[in-house]
Amino acid sequence: MVAIAFQPLGKRGTVPAGVSVLEAARRLGVGLSGVCGGAGVCGTCRVVVPPEYRDALSPLSDTERERLGGAEREQGVRLACRALIRRALQVFVPPESLTASQRTQVEGRQTPVRIDPVVVPADLSLPPPSLSDPRSDAERIRDGLGRPVRVDLEVLRRAPFPLREWGWVARAVLRGDEVVALLPPGAPLMGVAVDLGTTKLAGYLLNLETGETLASAGAMNPQLAYGEDVMARITYALQEPEGAERLRQAAADGLSQLVADLCSRAGVQPEQVVEAVVVGNTAMHHLFLGLPVRPLGLAPYVPVESAPLDVRAREVGLPLAPGAMVHVLPNVAGFVGADHVAALLATRMDEADRPTLLLDIGTNTEIGLSIGGNLFSCSAASGPAFEGAHVRFGMRAAPGAVERVRIIEGRVYWETVEGAPPVGICGSGILDAVAELRQAGFLNGRGGWADPEGRGSSPVISTDNGTEFVLVPAEFSGLGRAITISRKDVGEIQLAKAAIAAGWQILLEEAGIRESDLERVLVAGAFGTYIDIGHAVAMGLLPRLPLDRFEQVGNVAGTGARMALLSRAERERAAHLARRVRYVELTVHPSFRERFAQALQL
Amino acid sequence: MVAIAFQPLGKRGTVPAGVSVLEAARRLGVGLSGVCGGAGVCGTCRVVVPPEYRDALSPLSDTERERLGGAEREQGVRLACRALIRRALQVFVPPESLTASQRTQVEGRQTPVRIDPVVVPADLSLPPPSLSDPRSDAERIRDGLGRPVRVDLEVLRRAPFPLREWGWVARAVLRGDEVVALLPPGAPLMGVAVDLGTTKLAGYLLNLETGETLASAGAMNPQLAYGEDVMARITYALQEPEGAERLRQAAADGLSQLVADLCSRAGVQPEQVVEAVVVGNTAMHHLFLGLPVRPLGLAPYVPVESAPLDVRAREVGLPLAPGAMVHVLPNVAGFVGADHVAALLATRMDEADRPTLLLDIGTNTEIGLSIGGNLFSCSAASGPAFEGAHVRFGMRAAPGAVERVRIIEGRVYWETVEGAPPVGICGSGILDAVAELRQAGFLNGRGGWADPEGRGSSPVISTDNGTEFVLVPAEFSGLGRAITISRKDVGEIQLAKAAIAAGWQILLEEAGIRESDLERVLVAGAFGTYIDIGHAVAMGLLPRLPLDRFEQVGNVAGTGARMALLSRAERERAAHLARRVRYVELTVHPSFRERFAQALQL
Repeated sequence: MVAIAFQPLGKRGTVPAGVSVLEAARRLGVGLSGVCGGAGVCGTCRVVVPPEYRDALSPLSDTERERLGGAEREQGVRLACRALIRRALQVFVPPESLTASQRTQVEGRQTPVRIDPVVVPADLSLPPPSLSDPRSDAERIRDGLGRPVRVDLEVLRRAPFPLREWGWVARAVLRGDEVVALLPPGAPLMGVAVDLGTTKLAGYLLNLETGETLASAGAMNPQLAYGEDVMARITYALQEPEGAERLRQAAADGLSQLVADLCSRAGVQPEQVVEAVVVGNTAMHHLFLGLPVRPLGLAPYVPVESAPLDVRAREVGLPLAPGAMVHVLPNVAGFVGADHVAALLATRMDEADRPTLLLDIGTNTEIGLSIGGNLFSCSAASGPAFEGAHVRFGMRAAPGAVERVRIIEGRVYWETVEGAPPVGICGSGILDAVAELRQAGFLNGRGGWADPEGRGSSPVISTDNGTEFVLVPAEFSGLGRAITISRKDVGEIQLAKAAIAAGWQILLEEAGIRESDLERVLVAGAFGTYIDIGHAVAMGLLPRLPLDRFEQVGNVAGTGARMALLSRAERERAAHLARRVRYVELTVHPSFRERFAQALQL
Repeated sequence: MVAIAFQPLGKRGTVPAGVSVLEAARRLGVGLSGVCGGAGVCGTCRVVVPPEYRDALSPLSDTERERLGGAEREQGVRLACRALIRRALQVFVPPESLTASQRTQVEGRQTPVRIDPVVVPADLSLPPPSLSDPRSDAERIRDGLGRPVRVDLEVLRRAPFPLREWGWVARAVLRGDEVVALLPPGAPLMGVAVDLGTTKLAGYLLNLETGETLASAGAMNPQLAYGEDVMARITYALQEPEGAERLRQAAADGLSQLVADLCSRAGVQPEQVVEAVVVGNTAMHHLFLGLPVRPLGLAPYVPVESAPLDVRAREVGLPLAPGAMVHVLPNVAGFVGADHVAALLATRMDEADRPTLLLDIGTNTEIGLSIGGNLFSCSAASGPAFEGAHVRFGMRAAPGAVERVRIIEGRVYWETVEGAPPVGICGSGILDAVAELRQAGFLNGRGGWADPEGRGSSPVISTDNGTEFVLVPAEFSGLGRAITISRKDVGEIQLAKAAIAAGWQILLEEAGIRESDLERVLVAGAFGTYIDIGHAVAMGLLPRLPLDRFEQVGNVAGTGARMALLSRAERERAAHLARRVRYVELTVHPSFRERFAQALQL
């Protein structure tokens, strides 16, 4: 047996000598990609071997010599399926070689912040009351702090018992001149940051004194039961009696559950969480806060509030510390919300020294452009196709979802989340499939099936549903029937892609620059982390630029929320940044129709 | 028919020539006292006739010559039952000649305040949103105000529809840098002031721009269902599951109903009320705010909070304007609460230039003493006897309650609220009865029945319940049986009186002054307004001082609440005043037992 370590994941273990690096990765639970299943044809399982370990592997195979460029070989790149292990070594897995689903487990890009939270602790040791010292509990706290603070009503309601139980020793948590919580002596100050997405919630529990992330967790947005996209929920809120209240309650329940989950992972109680930051798009922001969404659903799509807000957690249905506040980052416009502001904050788009584009692809795709100190933003109605909806076999990136597709010499290779038997296709899988079908000539530019005549084994066949692409034949499918992609599915991807492409093209137009002027493109969000950038560029979803200008930055909205949780300066920066953004309304833009129509082309 | 006007009540009308002034008063609904029923024996129906109208009445009768002193006759005092009307005139009714119940309708003493409320209006006329001006509603308001205000969450929740309905013309109500309400254009700013008493609620609706009282109303405290005094309610809160919450809810419901009543009298909606002030004793304060009362019920009787508080009306269950706040005046100690502070404020006790005592007699009697710039306060557990409880035929001052009693030459005279057939005895009635029985020799100093032997028609008889004083024989009673006062009833009055007398005596002792040093005694509250001061002095309930040193000042707690509603300076003054008060805890005072025992003597 020999030892192997996969970096930077820190996964290590032992395997029998002679197995491939890919096989070792599978045995140790490392999500190393290998679409062709180790046949040496797809080239997706690239790993990098440091010089000192190069002779721990079998020599370069013919396949590798063929598939790897000279520069790659010099850097120590190997195909994991071809390289057999001889003795103990470490290999490095570049992000693009991780399975899409494992990649999303990597945290969003971290931007260092000075820890300076809005809440601060003050340790109290107070004399107990007596007939000769009958000061009120609050007066006693004020005297202990040495300044005339207010004590929140709910803190007053709950303080007397713990104070007496703890023998008048406690940690007061101050937010400005108000006591928002009393914690047991020595308890750490904790906060939660939440990205309230249309589809998913992402939450983080942080120690506000050290900045450490104590736990992170995700969950589906329970509002999904009332409509899958923003417009469907706004419609529900407006048309159903109590609809808005039901959506508000669903968001509050989902967030409360997420907070409970985070706390249980860290072994603490939600009552110990003294501050929260919530970001979300403008509709999620409004539904969560219980603000009316009617003005958001009708032109001119005006939010009720765009400035940052501090509201009591209890007033929005979150059971945290008695007086805990929730800080909600500012919105920019009706469809560019606090999540986008958080993403701009986390990526420091406000101080980008090169023309930089930021895309957060989702049901709504928020796009930001920074150039010469100016910020432009828009929102594209890309729909839920990339989140698995409106696609016949679409699903989210759960085990068994096809997440990567390659068509090599007419043969279809696929990879599923956690290697489970295929049961559907997630967003990155369908994007891959459409891109590969187009490259292989099975789709024409309009999205129609190209004539496969004269080719070998065509994956496009006629079925009861018309002509379809068979992604997974019935015999390999976990469903017991074939998993296919129809013309209509392709059409959904065309619409989504066109909306996004028209969006960034109009931002470039507004800023007066060309595609090639972009020096950096940041692709954010879960889907943005899953996708194969090369395919997205080839399809025109992303600007046609060298791949090294792209960075997949993960959930930067969540990162921005965490930064605002830890730092007052970051909150101010976010407020300032939101006011600086020039919002571009796509639906009324003179170029929109034409650009959208052109971008429908594959 | 001749015209007659009763001043300063402003009641006028016509009556046939030749009727007495008392008869005219009855016909016109003026609550002129006349305990003996117009027999000319009690002397309670004194009125004052201005010189120009003196010959509009019949000449002085023999009875008047006998009963009125020379000085009185010179001032134009007449007995209304003896003076017959000859032609049109005006008469003045001194407060002591009004029936007790009518007297309480006279407002508490008014102290002028500079109108400077904590909420101010700002008239807005905003451009409507459009695709070229998609600012959020809140941003539009901020821009209209020209300053970066916050908008309360609940205002945000409700603002969008009215703003659009009113065509973007509105009145914003600002409290500091926060918008707490949006009113229709031209709507006045209104506030409510409430005295939350253990037994009764008194509420006032004020125009905050003019200072005008638009409506005033009273109600019973619905908490009465859970105990009649403070200790009973604290016990209920501690012993019953959900007891405290039930009491909180009862207070909130009672106040909400009172506000609804006030608003309906003034023809406005509670949503237009933008600020409130609530005062009450410390236990009422805590129960209303939902603060735990356990520390209040046990030595050292420590409140949870004694400083002034500003809480959202919605957080304490009051449905006012969306973001309206409730200001709660400070407490002094466990049993000297915000109502006492309001009374000290209204009577300007903090700047009294002469030694002044203030008593607010109720289930708890709060007593304040001002001397040489120092303020002392205590609370006496006087019990509910003066509010009609713990007395066999006791009742509150509702129609049919005997409110005045005179024993003249062994005959008992009484007067009831609104002249209705007698059905019980209210506090002032029982105080009168005990004082008159003692003066007439039917009670000894220990409260026992004195031997009535050898007298004429004794009103003290033996019944099934032992020896009792027959206040109203069965044939005159609205109950169909006699209304009597028992030895036990007398005992209740002795206990109440002793608690109060021991209280002010100890305050004098603490301040190092004697009874005779007091230059002013202010008697406040409903009962304090009803009582016959002479009787209260004779019994030792009040200091033995010339009657002209006493002032019956009405509900000064309510007045103080109104002052704090109208003026920020008064709120600051109240906060300052509460900190200056030296609280004296009676129960542990070394002189308390002895003084209490002595004061039991009638």
